[in-house]
Amino acid sequence: MSGPKVQLLLTGNELMTGDIVDSNSAMMAQVLKDIGLSVNRKVTVADDLALLVDEITYMANTSDILIINGGLGPTVDDLTAQALALSIGEELTQHPEALVHLTHWCQQRGAELNAPNLKQAILPNGCQIIANKNGSAVGFSVRYKDCDIYCTPGVPHELKVMLTEQIIPIISAGLPLNLITDITRLQVFGIGESSLQKIINEQLPNWPEGIELGFRAGMPLLEVKLTIKTEQGLALKSPWKEKLINALGDHMIGEIKGKPKPLAEHLINQLQQHNLKVTTAESCSGGLIASKLTEVSGSSAVFEAGFVTYSNQMKTTMLDVPKSIFEKEGAVSEAVVVAMAKGSLTKSNADLTIAVSGVAGPNGGSDDKPVGTVWFAWGSMDNIKTQCLLLPYNRLQFQQFVAAIGLDLLRRYQKKSTTKPNYIVERAFPDK
Amino acid sequence: MSGPKVQLLLTGNELMTGDIVDSNSAMMAQVLKDIGLSVNRKVTVADDLALLVDEITYMANTSDILIINGGLGPTVDDLTAQALALSIGEELTQHPEALVHLTHWCQQRGAELNAPNLKQAILPNGCQIIANKNGSAVGFSVRYKDCDIYCTPGVPHELKVMLTEQIIPIISAGLPLNLITDITRLQVFGIGESSLQKIINEQLPNWPEGIELGFRAGMPLLEVKLTIKTEQGLALKSPWKEKLINALGDHMIGEIKGKPKPLAEHLINQLQQHNLKVTTAESCSGGLIASKLTEVSGSSAVFEAGFVTYSNQMKTTMLDVPKSIFEKEGAVSEAVVVAMAKGSLTKSNADLTIAVSGVAGPNGGSDDKPVGTVWFAWGSMDNIKTQCLLLPYNRLQFQQFVAAIGLDLLRRYQKKSTTKPNYIVERAFPDK
Repeated sequence: MSGPKVQLLLTGNELMTGDIVDSNSAMMAQVLKDIGLSVNRKVTVADDLALLVDEITYMANTSDILIINGGLGPTVDDLTAQALALSIGEELTQHPEALVHLTHWCQQRGAELNAPNLKQAILPNGCQIIANKNGSAVGFSVRYKDCDIYCTPGVPHELKVMLTEQIIPIISAGLPLNLITDITRLQVFGIGESSLQKIINEQLPNWPEGIELGFRAGMPLLEVKLTIKTEQGLALKSPWKEKLINALGDHMIGEIKGKPKPLAEHLINQLQQHNLKVTTAESCSGGLIASKLTEVSGSSAVFEAGFVTYSNQMKTTMLDVPKSIFEKEGAVSEAVVVAMAKGSLTKSNADLTIAVSGVAGPNGGSDDKPVGTVWFAWGSMDNIKTQCLLLPYNRLQFQQFVAAIGLDLLRRYQKKSTTKPNYIVERAFPDK
Repeated sequence: MSGPKVQLLLTGNELMTGDIVDSNSAMMAQVLKDIGLSVNRKVTVADDLALLVDEITYMANTSDILIINGGLGPTVDDLTAQALALSIGEELTQHPEALVHLTHWCQQRGAELNAPNLKQAILPNGCQIIANKNGSAVGFSVRYKDCDIYCTPGVPHELKVMLTEQIIPIISAGLPLNLITDITRLQVFGIGESSLQKIINEQLPNWPEGIELGFRAGMPLLEVKLTIKTEQGLALKSPWKEKLINALGDHMIGEIKGKPKPLAEHLINQLQQHNLKVTTAESCSGGLIASKLTEVSGSSAVFEAGFVTYSNQMKTTMLDVPKSIFEKEGAVSEAVVVAMAKGSLTKSNADLTIAVSGVAGPNGGSDDKPVGTVWFAWGSMDNIKTQCLLLPYNRLQFQQFVAAIGLDLLRRYQKKSTTKPNYIVERAFPDK
């Protein structure tokens, strides 16, 4: 990496005790990566003045950019300004711009500007203020021994806004012009890393070197990432992105712009466009599919009701599943999920349904239906599809996978997809 | 702190890129805290040999205990053994005990012991092996310049088992005898930090200094923590713990031994003991309460069915809510949730039910029923309670709170509790 050397210094007792997990530094690394910078080293220490001064002094000497996170608050624990002043040999003084911010902040909230608040305006002499839209603590920066030092608040959403809106533009402006980073992120489901590699090898064997392909496994949606760092790569982006999207086919769910959307939201948008209503008939997933759908704002336009039929008797009472099927086929069977699917369509007047029945475990498995076995039935009254899968995970993961697969099966059904997703693995049943 | 000085060194490119959030170091800090040790400093670097050697050398010189996490795998990126060997000036050699472990590991899995695997047995001369129950990478430790250095795997569950079962006992055995840490953790719900403080002040004014009271806000369950570090404190533990539990009353859900149990599991155990069945009638929570219940293994003993009635029409179809109520009172009303509760009991033959209807937002609010308004009805057919709350959170948080409060209301109902939980705030309705 030929770019500047970046280090992070995180401070906070709660980070040292393990009472909170540090997600700030991962976010910072991601945001920096988007402008082509990588973090070289990060150090975390408690709110201890001597330790902070030592680290700042060493890190300023060994990096081009140092971002300090935390310790900007009003209490005596918050030592960043003091430590920085000592490290760079400057006095602490009241900063007029910071005072204006604090006064305004308190006025807006009808609060008194008290001594602890005032402390947040006492900063190292000569520093530049960085605005904080969402909190009382302003950020500040200094240049010391060829290192740009940025002090940022520990509250995650304050940090994120300050970083992306204020600090990143300053850092970017100072970067050599040949540093390019263009990132495209595609959400996919039903395809794994090795299958993606196979698709590339077989269908796109001349994939250009200038477009780096990455793959991140998520739960449940996965992400394919195209990173471009050169002008040549940039020139090739548009046609190769299109080729990749074509090759991904129905595994591709959408391009991520900003925050990734959950699978249920994609499905709901798709159903809303076609004016279709959906219902659910859940046994082993116990309401999770309905819950995922109703997490999405606006879901009421496509979802009116879900049936959580956990016992056999309630499958009969609520969805008219004939009692005889349980005796003949068992509760986890194709016949039961088909009857559940039909019952849910009849009772709800929905156009589409997803029905599931399985063995979530840890108990209840048998030789021919081990823990992890699940039957799906989905579609519309005149065209119901079925599939049995074995998902050998713990109870919670099993339920999460069942819900994600259920939503994806409906998504593919509505698109009339004929591509087989990876999670559909034909397996030999011990009995058959 | 008079105990030994502990530092952590974390290695891994994925930690530097922000592709994963480091939760290992928080877990390590928590486990160390349980034996009275605090982490002084932690450093994270990429998989880079020169950087690793620098850090190990410096950290070994400035701490009594150094735990290195990550970099034990079979690939060329995994550099911990090599870096440690260089730092302490020892050769790398094949360790016979590590080889036995690897051979056994591969045999069990019917896998071949190949060159990358063999690399995991090449360790610094003179190191001690630390067993890894759950992975191919053994841990190892050396003593260098009065510092005990422990190298541990990056995979979280391998680390956790190795740390708690192997490393902590070794560290504990070497600690001065006067270091005591006895921690009791109580799960509570329906009480906040300031109310807890008020209870202590009013009911237990002579709370002993030797028992430190802590409070951790979780989602949704909260935790009250008693930390004892002295013999005197230990002698007072039993009576004061009992007094506190009495004072907490029905806000107390249980003592945490090992992994905290979810609220639904407490409720299910309670219902199972009394042979009671429960059902759910959900509008704004969209199946989340049913899903929380069925996440618990063994929930089928108390839960047979849940009704997700998202539209008015389906509240009528599935739960016999009279249409006239919607016109008169609106979907978010006491009359509707009472009718939903009764309908769900009739249709499911359950003993207890929880019914909810609210405005999850971000749209759909009105002046008299703003976003966040929710009506609850719960209990048995002959005794249905109701409550309206305003929970002004975003959609996902709103649904999570509704589910947690719904489960807690049932828990308190079954216990015939008369203590009012904090979340019940009587509010003036604009209309009334």
